Amino acid sequence: MPHIQLDNDLPGIAGLIRQRPDTGALINTMADALLRGPLSLTPGERELIAAYTSERNETPFCANSHSAFAAAQLDGGKELVQAVLVDPWTAPLTPRLRALIRIAAEVQGPVAVLPDDVVAAAREAGADDAEIHDTVLVAAAFCMINRYVTCLDTDLPESPGYYEHAAKGILGKGYAATLT
Amino acid sequence: MPHIQLDNDLPGIAGLIRQRPDTGALINTMADALLRGPLSLTPGERELIAAYTSERNETPFCANSHSAFAAAQLDGGKELVQAVLVDPWTAPLTPRLRALIRIAAEVQGPVAVLPDDVVAAAREAGADDAEIHDTVLVAAAFCMINRYVTCLDTDLPESPGYYEHAAKGILGKGYAATLT
Repeated sequence: MPHIQLDNDLPGIAGLIRQRPDTGALINTMADALLRGPLSLTPGERELIAAYTSERNETPFCANSHSAFAAAQLDGGKELVQAVLVDPWTAPLTPRLRALIRIAAEVQGPVAVLPDDVVAAAREAGADDAEIHDTVLVAAAFCMINRYVTCLDTDLPESPGYYEHAAKGILGKGYAATLT
Repeated sequence: MPHIQLDNDLPGIAGLIRQRPDTGALINTMADALLRGPLSLTPGERELIAAYTSERNETPFCANSHSAFAAAQLDGGKELVQAVLVDPWTAPLTPRLRALIRIAAEVQGPVAVLPDDVVAAAREAGADDAEIHDTVLVAAAFCMINRYVTCLDTDLPESPGYYEHAAKGILGKGYAATLT
């Protein structure tokens, strides 16, 4: 049961966004800009970083949601996303995307400092400043979103098809139009 | 030296916002809404939560900035803010605000789970659902902001009066108008 009373029974962040449209609009704007807006990485790559960060933050609602959104937008689909969540260092990623996932791992923690050699390795694998910046920002944003969802102790969805259904909404209409 | 090349020499998050007006606008909008907008806690209380979370995340630019912004808006000023950063459990806070700072500590980590008894203690000290929600969201937001600033290895300001000067801008005009 969530730590605060909700006037709806939506799971995860969806219930919080419905309950608090003021801060909910802010979160949706951030999600649309960081995950779907015109940044350097593809939306699928950014959703993969979101899923991976959420998995490391032990936030199943977000990990499952963004895994589904990533799978729907990446060649390799569910199988690739699952492999990255289990072990990104052996998953069939390009060296560039693996190096960006490594950056996301450092941003998540436990120390949350990005060592020089991790940045240098990403550059060597072909990542540029914009990609490094955007990876840090997306991973950092999920350190916020995951805490919001976990620390308010929100419920998980009961329907087994919830995440795939949500993916259709997000891909078709975006976050703000789907989660209100 | 920052991990990405900046076309300016502004310190902390200011340099990143100037460099990337696209995501910078998003961050400023979030800061104005969460720290100055019409939420349940006073702006001074929210800045104190931001400063305390930043101190725990070992991000001196943010800890010093939001300490100055909190001090300018709280009875007790600098002395109170410093006492909270050193040891909130003995600082001269109201039981309600101390209980909310305890919530922020749990959100920051290391586990980032909010135990039932910590929420119950906040309620007993007079905090309501909106205050608990807003405390979690502000502390979570600084787990994003702090990582963004720390992981891109931004510089600290050289001028000793930087933070007090920034406080005048933030209190007078807000984040979006000050950091551009």
